[in-house]
Parts: sequence; structure tokens; C-alpha cells
Amino acid sequence: MSTATLQSVTAPVRPSLEEFERYVRRVLRTPVPLLNLVLWYLFRRRGKRVRPALTFLSAAACGQISHRTFVGAAMVELLHTATLVHDDVVDRARERRGFPSVNALWSERVAVLVGDYLLARGLLLATQEREWEFLDITAGAVQQMSSAELRHVQLNRKLRLEREQYLEVIRGKTAALFAAACEIGAVSADAEPALRAALRRYGEDIGIAYQLVDDVLDYTGRQQLLGKPAWQDLREHKLTLPLLIALERMGPAERSEFLRRFRRQHNGADLRWMAQQVLRWGGVEATQELARHYGERAQHALEELPPSPARSALQEFAEFVLQRLW
Amino acid sequence: MSTATLQSVTAPVRPSLEEFERYVRRVLRTPVPLLNLVLWYLFRRRGKRVRPALTFLSAAACGQISHRTFVGAAMVELLHTATLVHDDVVDRARERRGFPSVNALWSERVAVLVGDYLLARGLLLATQEREWEFLDITAGAVQQMSSAELRHVQLNRKLRLEREQYLEVIRGKTAALFAAACEIGAVSADAEPALRAALRRYGEDIGIAYQLVDDVLDYTGRQQLLGKPAWQDLREHKLTLPLLIALERMGPAERSEFLRRFRRQHNGADLRWMAQQVLRWGGVEATQELARHYGERAQHALEELPPSPARSALQEFAEFVLQRLW
Repeated sequence: MSTATLQSVTAPVRPSLEEFERYVRRVLRTPVPLLNLVLWYLFRRRGKRVRPALTFLSAAACGQISHRTFVGAAMVELLHTATLVHDDVVDRARERRGFPSVNALWSERVAVLVGDYLLARGLLLATQEREWEFLDITAGAVQQMSSAELRHVQLNRKLRLEREQYLEVIRGKTAALFAAACEIGAVSADAEPALRAALRRYGEDIGIAYQLVDDVLDYTGRQQLLGKPAWQDLREHKLTLPLLIALERMGPAERSEFLRRFRRQHNGADLRWMAQQVLRWGGVEATQELARHYGERAQHALEELPPSPARSALQEFAEFVLQRLW
Repeated sequence: MSTATLQSVTAPVRPSLEEFERYVRRVLRTPVPLLNLVLWYLFRRRGKRVRPALTFLSAAACGQISHRTFVGAAMVELLHTATLVHDDVVDRARERRGFPSVNALWSERVAVLVGDYLLARGLLLATQEREWEFLDITAGAVQQMSSAELRHVQLNRKLRLEREQYLEVIRGKTAALFAAACEIGAVSADAEPALRAALRRYGEDIGIAYQLVDDVLDYTGRQQLLGKPAWQDLREHKLTLPLLIALERMGPAERSEFLRRFRRQHNGADLRWMAQQVLRWGGVEATQELARHYGERAQHALEELPPSPARSALQEFAEFVLQRLW
């Protein structure tokens, strides 16, 4: 088993990622003091910058990192941050990764407005730079993200969700922006269509794997990796794949007992019992298996690219994502 | 005094506005049932379509309405609707114009996501149609809107706001999208730069007048015109121009009594007393005066354009906006 860390994986583009921090700060300078303060707070720590790292690695794997790569990486990170800020509003989350959320520190109003600002700023960055292809790619991703979340809300409400439907939801919710990050990297390096398509497929599969691993970690309770308490999805009555698979496998009596507890305002004992059932019926294991499948498919997509340190790093990135499983 | 109605003012572009309703419905068709339902709800009634009417009139005043005019008008209306839906979330508003808000009927989550979807859909419409200038104009307007709202939040919190600062806030909050609506109309008719600039100025001034009239109506309590209870701004501790002007004119003792009441959780008696003070110190009258000034300046900007029924309609539109004052 390899021991990839995000640090080691992104080594080939480390200088660009350093420069990226300065670039984003320049992009986010505004004449509104409150906005500057909130933006400073959101971007003050380096963060993981998973998606920009994918943009830089994709560009490097196709050719050269250029100014266009910085523009694309910034768009993706601004849009991603906008969705996090809005997520915390709708979840009434007080914390994100151990720090107070924007809605907790300021207000819901400020959080909604800053999210809108970041969405618009990301898209305007592309119009200023005349990067029309980036706009096509990212505005499409934002649309996919919000409509997939809405589909999830609806399917959740009905407590009726097939495995395929769930995969469609996370394809929009999480994978669309990963795919956009990789495709934009390729476009920024003037990649030929086959490479661009391969990196888009890679990004989508990696994004699905990433979300499935997140779903698993919610059950296996590796809090330190997630920066949030275990069973958060269960607590919020969120149907995710481990639970769906467990439900498929239960007998009718067990399923109806499970759903009875899932539907009500559950207490700590309910949570523990439900989490145990999900593990016992193999929901976690089967989801891990599927995450691995998508991770491998992502690696497979990379075979289209010529060998390079950046391509190797993208291979390792897939391992890094799956490694969080162990 | 003329008796312009929105119906009579928009007569020269009535067929286009009819067609616009069908066009918007086509644009908003999605494969997500919940999203379709919410969008149907938001667009089910014809609404006032003030901004699209300005787009069509501006195009007609410069030349011909074209498919591009429809694209631009739809962008503006989608972005406007997005901001209304998000406003209702942050204001925890249960109603809008007498009907339940999206957050009241569904949830805050659904409202935030639908708002994001509409923002992205509006901008994506332009990328699909390769209308890069429209994107420049509207993404800039969205950025101005959210940053002006944030400035307002901040200035409100400090209870310190100069008249000039307030005008800057509404220039971003309300007037930016009016300016965008008119400018896009001109661009869609391939207007020469001088006409385009004139219509942009017209839109901005009309937008400021429109907001000032709204601020006045909140104090004069013409509920039927606003579709919301009187003194809503006071209730929400919102500093608007009538109040700012009244504060400027009060003596120190009155001002501190006013601010004492304004700051606390005020009751019905406080509201009535404060509203009376704002009227007594001429805050409402001075704001009416300023609204008229901007309305006239808007009409003046139109002199750049050749005479036409559409230009006359835009002149009347300014009267229609101000007429709500009486």
C-alpha cells in the first residue's frame, strides 16, 4: 500500500500552488470592507486546494501551466467555496473543519450574499479574461450541482432512492466540479480533444470516488479526517450509498424497523443502532468496493496521456483518495 | 399629471412580452421534477416583468427587437428572480406579494439551491448563445448587487450612513440590474456606443428613482402598491434615505431618543413614533424630491435617442415610476 499524502501527490505543481495563493488574494480584493474581511477569513488558511491542484496537474500533464491555468483554477475554487458557504447556511452548520462558519460568525444574510458574490466573481473572472470555454464548463457545472442537490432533497423526502439515482446525484453534486477542474486544466494547456476528454472522465470518476469515500467515512467515523462528527449524514436524515445498499439487503421486517427509526427524531441509541445495521448488512463494504472501482476507472482514463511526472501524480491522487478508506 | 400604467407604458412591446413568457418557460425546462415545480411556481404568474420590459423597449428604441433581445431579457429576469428568492431566505420572509415564499413552501435549502440554479442558468444562457457582452454586463451587475448589499449590512450595523453612501448602495443593489437591462437591450439591437451609454445611464437613474420611491412607500404605507406591510424597513432596522435625512435634520436630543428606540427591539408604538418623526423632519419629502431628480435625469438621458414610440414609452416609464409617489 502506498502512503500518498496530498503534499507528496501535488509536489510536481507545488510552485504553481504557492503562486496560486497570491493570485487568488489579488482576484478577491474588493472595495467593500466587510466583504474583504469575510473573503480573508474564507481564504486565510491555505486549505487543501484539492480542485486547483487537479487543474494544475491536468495542465502540466497536457503541456504547460500558463496564466490561463491560474484563471481556471481560481474559478473552480471560488465556485467551490461559494457552494460550501451556501451549504452551511442551509444546514445551519455552526462549524466547518473546526472553525466557525460564515453564518455563525456573521449572519445568514452575509453568508448568502458572499456566496452569491463568489459565484458571480468566479464567472466574471472568466469574462474579464475572455475565457469563454471555461465559462461553458463551469456554468454548466454549477447548474448540475444545484439541480443534483435538489434531486437529492426530493428523493430523500420520499425515502426512495435507487443506487443508480444516488450515483447520478453525486455525479452532479460532487463530480461535476472535479470534472470541470480537470477539463479546464487541459483546455488551459491547449490539449487536443482526446486528452481533454480523458481528463474530464478522470475528474468525474475521481469525484465520484471522493464522495463515496466521504459517505463511508461518515459511518466508519474517522472524525479527524472529516473535521465533523460521525454519523452526520444519519443525523441529518441523509440517504447515502452505504445506507441504501444496507436497505436493499435487509429483510422486510428489518427494513421497516430501520425506516421507522430513520424517520423519527432519533436519539443517540437510534443512531448507534442504525450505523451498526449499515455496517452489518455490508453497506459500507460495498460502497468501499464501488469507490475503488471508480478510482481504478479514473486511473485507467489517464492511459490516454503521455507519461510525465504530472500524470504519475494524478495516478497517485486516485490512490490518495482511496487511501482515506483504510 | 399623467396616468401611466405599466400596461400602457409597455404597449409598444406588448407582443414581445407575450412571446417572452413562452420563451422563459422553454429556457427553464429541466429534468429535475422538484426544480420544475419551484420554477413553475416562481414564473407561473406573468409578474410585472419590469426589467424585461426595459430591455425590449431599449432594443426597440435603438432599432429592432431580435432573438438576442429575448436572451438578454431572460438573463436579467432570471438573475432578478434569483436575488428575490435569496432575499426571502435571509429575511426569513414567509410571503412575497401576498403568496408564500419558496422558503416557506419548501425549505431554506430548496430556496438557496434554486437561487443558485437561477444565477447559473442565467449566465449559462449567455454562454450557450455566445453572448459574451451580455455576460460582461450581467456578471458585473450581480457582483455589484451582492457587494452593495454587504456594504449596506455593514453600514446598517454601525448605524452610520451618509446620504452619499446610501446612494452608492442602491446604485449597486437596485440600479445595477436596471442599467444592465437597458444596456443589454441596446446591445441586442447593435446600437452605436453613444446610444448604448445613454440607455445605460437611463437605466441606472431609473433604478435609483425606483428604489427611492420604494423607500418612500415604506413610510407612506401604500401597502397595496408594495404587497408588504408598512414600515417593513423600520421593523427590520434598515436605514433608508427618508430616515437618514430625518436623522441629519434632528437636534442632538431628538436624534439620540430616535436612535435609542431604533436600536432596541421596538414595539408598535415605537414604530408609529419613529415613522412620524421621519415624516415630521421631512425625510419622506426630501426623498421624493430626490427621486424626481433622478427620474428627470433619466428622461434627459433619452434625448440622445431618435424619437420613436419606444423612446416615448421609456419617457413614460419614468413617469410611471414617480407616479407611485402620489
